[in-house]
Amino acid sequence: MRHSLVLVINSGSSSLKFALIDAVSGDARLTGLGECFGLSDASVSWKYDGEKSSFALEATGNHHQQAIDRLVLLLDELGLKQDIIAIGHRVVHGGERFSETVKIDDQVLAEIEALSELAPLHNPAHVIGIRAAISAFPYLPQYAVFDTAFHQSMPAKAYRYALPEKLYQDFGIRRYGFHGTSHFFVSLEAAKLLGKPAEKTNVITVHLGNGASICAVRNGQSVDTSMGFTPTAGLMMGTRCGDLDPGIVDFLINKGWSQAEVQQALNKEAGFLGVSGLTSDCRGIVEAMEAGHAGAKLAFEIFTYRVAKYIASYMVALDELDAIVFTGGIGENSLPVRSEVLKYLKIFGYREDATGNANARFGEKGVITKPNTPMAMVIPTNEEWVIARESMALLHA
Amino acid sequence: MRHSLVLVINSGSSSLKFALIDAVSGDARLTGLGECFGLSDASVSWKYDGEKSSFALEATGNHHQQAIDRLVLLLDELGLKQDIIAIGHRVVHGGERFSETVKIDDQVLAEIEALSELAPLHNPAHVIGIRAAISAFPYLPQYAVFDTAFHQSMPAKAYRYALPEKLYQDFGIRRYGFHGTSHFFVSLEAAKLLGKPAEKTNVITVHLGNGASICAVRNGQSVDTSMGFTPTAGLMMGTRCGDLDPGIVDFLINKGWSQAEVQQALNKEAGFLGVSGLTSDCRGIVEAMEAGHAGAKLAFEIFTYRVAKYIASYMVALDELDAIVFTGGIGENSLPVRSEVLKYLKIFGYREDATGNANARFGEKGVITKPNTPMAMVIPTNEEWVIARESMALLHA
Repeated sequence: MRHSLVLVINSGSSSLKFALIDAVSGDARLTGLGECFGLSDASVSWKYDGEKSSFALEATGNHHQQAIDRLVLLLDELGLKQDIIAIGHRVVHGGERFSETVKIDDQVLAEIEALSELAPLHNPAHVIGIRAAISAFPYLPQYAVFDTAFHQSMPAKAYRYALPEKLYQDFGIRRYGFHGTSHFFVSLEAAKLLGKPAEKTNVITVHLGNGASICAVRNGQSVDTSMGFTPTAGLMMGTRCGDLDPGIVDFLINKGWSQAEVQQALNKEAGFLGVSGLTSDCRGIVEAMEAGHAGAKLAFEIFTYRVAKYIASYMVALDELDAIVFTGGIGENSLPVRSEVLKYLKIFGYREDATGNANARFGEKGVITKPNTPMAMVIPTNEEWVIARESMALLHA
Repeated sequence: MRHSLVLVINSGSSSLKFALIDAVSGDARLTGLGECFGLSDASVSWKYDGEKSSFALEATGNHHQQAIDRLVLLLDELGLKQDIIAIGHRVVHGGERFSETVKIDDQVLAEIEALSELAPLHNPAHVIGIRAAISAFPYLPQYAVFDTAFHQSMPAKAYRYALPEKLYQDFGIRRYGFHGTSHFFVSLEAAKLLGKPAEKTNVITVHLGNGASICAVRNGQSVDTSMGFTPTAGLMMGTRCGDLDPGIVDFLINKGWSQAEVQQALNKEAGFLGVSGLTSDCRGIVEAMEAGHAGAKLAFEIFTYRVAKYIASYMVALDELDAIVFTGGIGENSLPVRSEVLKYLKIFGYREDATGNANARFGEKGVITKPNTPMAMVIPTNEEWVIARESMALLHA
């Protein structure tokens, strides 16, 4: 039986990820990654039916367009092209303009481009990818799914900073939040697992990956989240510092550091990597900690302590809490991280179920707390599936 | 009966506060303020026995020395000078060097001066004030009481930022915390009220004044606090922004703002003032909110929401929580602020006792939650009394 397929594209400044999603099952039929765009060794690799292949792009030229043109050929060869009914694009920043998925037209494309000021690394790259996709698939409807959209339901007390109002009015400086598709997806899945309608479900979703953020979901809507105006804020991450005393930026510039050096230190040399001096990867941190490495132990402690503090702080945004939901690469797989966070939450009655915690990994969902105690669970995220589903929903609207 | 007196001095860059504290009762016999130092209208005003007086200083010269010399004359006139047995100085920054009150000698003075890099507005001014006091009272022992000292018990997971380790090693960039004398004092008073030994008392102390910070006190020791490397961090304050996405500083500098303009916006034009566009004073905010002012309402909401989130987050640093303790000008007097914060804490079982809340103000301490619910209380702070008592303790050690 042939199924309708949605092509999901995540176009970065020097890369382009894609996935071909079965619109019924949500399975990825084909996944791929174009990388090193702008360099002479730009290439596209993909995985189909368990097999990996790759293809070098030309040494120069528009690599986004080349990658998508190559993808069109590949889809044709595989006999999949005619089953594609829509294309969904991941777009990092929708500003205050986009609170939901939209069909892309010239106006929308111009607005995404205009939001580049708020996401200078991402939105211009999305626009390039969208243009290449439109040129390759002019007959298909294309949709933009925004990382920020889910968080547009936050109240002002959560999204406004304690800054002069004109910074909000003149520059749009406010909390936008990111990872919205992931927080949205796992909050919906949690509602199903809880047997409650989404609009009556209250959860705290904890997306821990190389980037990490937490979201308070009240009656199905985001009411607070830890990333802010930029994705640097909130939790400690692989190489990002998260929340910081802004006086530190001032101090370093007074020490003669350039702006670029400060941003490099905060975004690329901080987090797990900076504290441990070892690695940005959580598995490496846990291994080194278990082998007695002091920096890795401190990195683990700061990370888990801050996650627990954020979870607790978001409880005040809810009248009741149905479950804490872990997701993302670390949230789905790191037993030690989840176990340590639950220990911190003991004061609220949370008790780890060691078997449940051990079982919920490698893509398995499940409850990780003991019966008759407050509930925490693991739900694997699937952002591509959200993007495909949102696109389908609009296509059929 | 004559009592021993301790002269408490808080020397700022252009001001000098003083208080003469009865070493037995803790009462202030004399309080005063020298201000506008460095300007032609520098003056000293004081209050004694219910009466206020003031004195102009010379148009030029060393105003700190002049103020202290004038104070010596005044103490002589009032017949109080010979009862002074010690001088206690408030010092904002003790770095990692000072974890308790110390007797001041040349070495200590040099170390306080060396910490000026971490507190450029405060420590140099303290040194000037200490030198003037030594010159005026060469025969009295002088003590330094540090705002940061109480927080030196924090574990690394609380005081270290998720930044490259070298920023800690090379520059001492870490969380120091401030308001230590206040958090220490009210945690001790709370222990008395709870009838528990301080070393077994677990409280969250909430100091809300023009500056504001929160502290988790575990078994009598500070284990986390909301101010950071600088006093800009943590809660929203009168004119300070508190915690901020560090990407915002970068964004504003990219917009052409100077470093000084950014710091001015974050420290002097933010907080209550910046959000409301009206006033930095909490009473003014509450009045304007009650009169329907939207900016004031938002300022009140951001402030109380953030206080509640911080309180909740610090619960994870404790195994049990005996009480939440409000103090500081706002914490001691603002019924609406305390009431709103307790509403947010409803998910943890807190229930405001309206009568208790109404009674605990204007210097009155008291419990503000209902019997048989988790406890919150108000305890007026008295930093001068802590400074006097710490000085006395060392004098008699």
